[in-house]
Amino acid sequence: HLDKCMQDKLFVLQLAVWGLRGVARVILANNPLSGALILAALYWASPWQGLLGTLGVLASTLTAVIIGQDSAEVSGGLHGFNGMLVSLLMGVFSTAGDWYWWLLLPVCLGSATCVFLFSGLSPVLDRWDLPVAVFPFNIIIVLYLLCTGTDNPYFPHHPATPPGLPEHNGTELIAVEVTCGILLGVGQIFACGALGPSLLILGAVLLYSPLLAAHALLGSAVGTLAGLSMAVRHESLYSGLSGFNGALGCMAVGGLFFTFSWRTHLFAIASAFLSAYADIALSNLLGTVGLPACSWAATLTATLMLLLTGSLAAYRIPIGQVMAP
Amino acid sequence: HLDKCMQDKLFVLQLAVWGLRGVARVILANNPLSGALILAALYWASPWQGLLGTLGVLASTLTAVIIGQDSAEVSGGLHGFNGMLVSLLMGVFSTAGDWYWWLLLPVCLGSATCVFLFSGLSPVLDRWDLPVAVFPFNIIIVLYLLCTGTDNPYFPHHPATPPGLPEHNGTELIAVEVTCGILLGVGQIFACGALGPSLLILGAVLLYSPLLAAHALLGSAVGTLAGLSMAVRHESLYSGLSGFNGALGCMAVGGLFFTFSWRTHLFAIASAFLSAYADIALSNLLGTVGLPACSWAATLTATLMLLLTGSLAAYRIPIGQVMAP
Amino acid sequence: HLDKCMQDKLFVLQLAVWGLRGVARVILANNPLSGALILAALYWASPWQGLLGTLGVLASTLTAVIIGQDSAEVSGGLHGFNGMLVSLLMGVFSTAGDWYWWLLLPVCLGSATCVFLFSGLSPVLDRWDLPVAVFPFNIIIVLYLLCTGTDNPYFPHHPATPPGLPEHNGTELIAVEVTCGILLGVGQIFACGALGPSLLILGAVLLYSPLLAAHALLGSAVGTLAGLSMAVRHESLYSGLSGFNGALGCMAVGGLFFTFSWRTHLFAIASAFLSAYADIALSNLLGTVGLPACSWAATLTATLMLLLTGSLAAYRIPIGQVMAP
Repeated sequence: HLDKCMQDKLFVLQLAVWGLRGVARVILANNPLSGALILAALYWASPWQGLLGTLGVLASTLTAVIIGQDSAEVSGGLHGFNGMLVSLLMGVFSTAGDWYWWLLLPVCLGSATCVFLFSGLSPVLDRWDLPVAVFPFNIIIVLYLLCTGTDNPYFPHHPATPPGLPEHNGTELIAVEVTCGILLGVGQIFACGALGPSLLILGAVLLYSPLLAAHALLGSAVGTLAGLSMAVRHESLYSGLSGFNGALGCMAVGGLFFTFSWRTHLFAIASAFLSAYADIALSNLLGTVGLPACSWAATLTATLMLLLTGSLAAYRIPIGQVMAP
Repeated sequence: HLDKCMQDKLFVLQLAVWGLRGVARVILANNPLSGALILAALYWASPWQGLLGTLGVLASTLTAVIIGQDSAEVSGGLHGFNGMLVSLLMGVFSTAGDWYWWLLLPVCLGSATCVFLFSGLSPVLDRWDLPVAVFPFNIIIVLYLLCTGTDNPYFPHHPATPPGLPEHNGTELIAVEVTCGILLGVGQIFACGALGPSLLILGAVLLYSPLLAAHALLGSAVGTLAGLSMAVRHESLYSGLSGFNGALGCMAVGGLFFTFSWRTHLFAIASAFLSAYADIALSNLLGTVGLPACSWAATLTATLMLLLTGSLAAYRIPIGQVMAP
Repeated sequence: HLDKCMQDKLFVLQLAVWGLRGVARVILANNPLSGALILAALYWASPWQGLLGTLGVLASTLTAVIIGQDSAEVSGGLHGFNGMLVSLLMGVFSTAGDWYWWLLLPVCLGSATCVFLFSGLSPVLDRWDLPVAVFPFNIIIVLYLLCTGTDNPYFPHHPATPPGLPEHNGTELIAVEVTCGILLGVGQIFACGALGPSLLILGAVLLYSPLLAAHALLGSAVGTLAGLSMAVRHESLYSGLSGFNGALGCMAVGGLFFTFSWRTHLFAIASAFLSAYADIALSNLLGTVGLPACSWAATLTATLMLLLTGSLAAYRIPIGQVMAP
């Protein structure tokens, strides 16, 4: 109903709706209203990051329109979310400070390139009825960070710290901070480390689907637990960075790609653990060359779960029919 | 005949047979008796390693039963061998000493995760009629070692030494030790570095198929030769670590996936050389971050050989019909 | 017409034509005459490199004949170009000096192994109608360099320098040298860093197809521009190393796999930029362990472009019908 009445309206308005859908798609929702709330949260956390995110989602959606991608995909926001994530991460890792206007150049180019990767990966993954998900984002951001290096004269960035690095001053773990970290884990999906905006993002997911929101929190808690069991740096727990891969892995299985039942619920928890441990492993590996693991762990785990054969496969929803639970 | 009479017996006995088949599958055999001999060899070499191996094979077989994997696959032992290898390697790399009971936690979890990976990789590899082989083991052990890191407070492990590292005290190569290394190469498939148990393992393979045993020794010799030509560390040659990938690569082509003829025999030697050189290369690469190359080289080489087109493909046995030669 | 009359001639002559086609295939041409010119250019630049290239192309073509590969593929030179590239790069990276005869051993073995990889990768890539391209070369050369290591007693090689390394003495950029670098970028496809032979190679491409030659120069210029924007080392710009991946990416899209139109022309420029930036990123990554990025960037980019869906896919020429434009 929403999409139909939009057909007659202006292209700009249509593009806004596609973009907002793209914003919501990052956190596996598919609702322009949730997207608007999330974007508001990002502007609240940092206007510069909000601007970068907006630019990224628009740049990649427009590129998809220009190079003639499938219009159903474009209007579903499928070409926006990778571009948005690339822009947000470029902003977070940049050491040139806010309002460094030259950064808009890689932001636009990187977001546009996501469309090429999305379009190129889809026939490969389609063979097994798999979604492209955030593979393009993960590839592009790693390439960008590798390309510029830490002491680039034009686009400097700070290297990522592996979570397994030993801490020099072994302080006590603060329980309240860890609990905050679980909530921040939801915000870290958008590379946002402030508590208020994280709660607003969680609210936006709740608006779309309470089941998805519950799994987001559960997954973030599982991820933090996994981090504790591996004795990662405290900062990693407090900032929510150990939780967000767990959250994504849990949401994908528990609230999106499988019909809900007790078996899939347990399965979602297993997926969260696997995502979280894989994230620690990949962060340690990529951290040796100063790279972040982004959401590689959750993306690979969710892809693996969708490939599973056996009795769990019966609960799987085909990609074409995935919608709000 | 053996499988049928088992249907009526107790589940525990059935599980034991499935497990023993899984143990034998590690070295490409498929026979509960060979499995029992190999398990005895492992307990002989180190009771702790034997216990870990037993636990690993049981944990992964049980997980496969619980998450409802195909029963023919489970009873064939296909879900056991990856879990066993993961457990053995976790034990070998741990620096916490024998009988460190906390290690049983990652052993059980890691073995269980292998089933998910096995199940998830099979539809991808099935497209080209390829076996999943030990890909899950290789992935899980690398993730585990990355996750814990060398100075983890709970699960410490020692880093792997790349074979290409220059030696400080250039001693003479001892011919007898190198010959022992060839025999140990067969044992190293089970991460076992003692001569007696290695011979028992070779005997277990001989029991299943003399052709397979001959190729195991031949491949190990080829691997040692490749190691010599690249001037790897002497320790790597003496311990059999340079031989075991060659052995696996040689066995897979010469005794399992291809019908035997002079052409496939030469082909098996080529496969052994390729596995051995690829193993040195990957060990040097992964050694820079302290990781072992496990059996990545042999697994990738065997997969490549199964993909070959041209006149050699005519000798290939379809995966469904692979059995004892 | 040429191929038919050859059937009656001697096998040696036939092999020479197949080999020369293989030489031309490196730079996406398919013409024995262009191949002969390119080979002459290589002998001009360095007789030792010329000899290695000749040996590599012959070794891999002969291996393909012996292991019974498809004869149409062999006579088209498809099994020669990977072997040639492997031999040339082995020669370039060797620090043992020219006329170090032991190097012929890895050259022959490496070239022969390319045929196995080519044959093994083709059924995988065929699913999406993709060419195997230079994947075998890229894999083999990386494995070889990893296998030998920098201080190997038999086959020493010098490590590759990542382009993002900061320069100690910040000199001015010389415009003439950069322009030379654009021309050298075409020669660097054959690992040849001399101006005269590079121009001869460009002439050989011009002979086969002026469109391809124009895209080679354009791509090399785009690659140099990308290098400038990322402030890579001056030496990398002067030697043409920052240009050759751009040239390959541009040629593949603009002159080979897509019918020519203004849209595909713009698309070829995008492909050149993407190849060039990906090359800087991969060179920085692989440079941390002393490895070169070879042509991974261009190969992956061209593969991605061939996978693209949407309106650009309509211009794509199926692999079986790719020929001179």
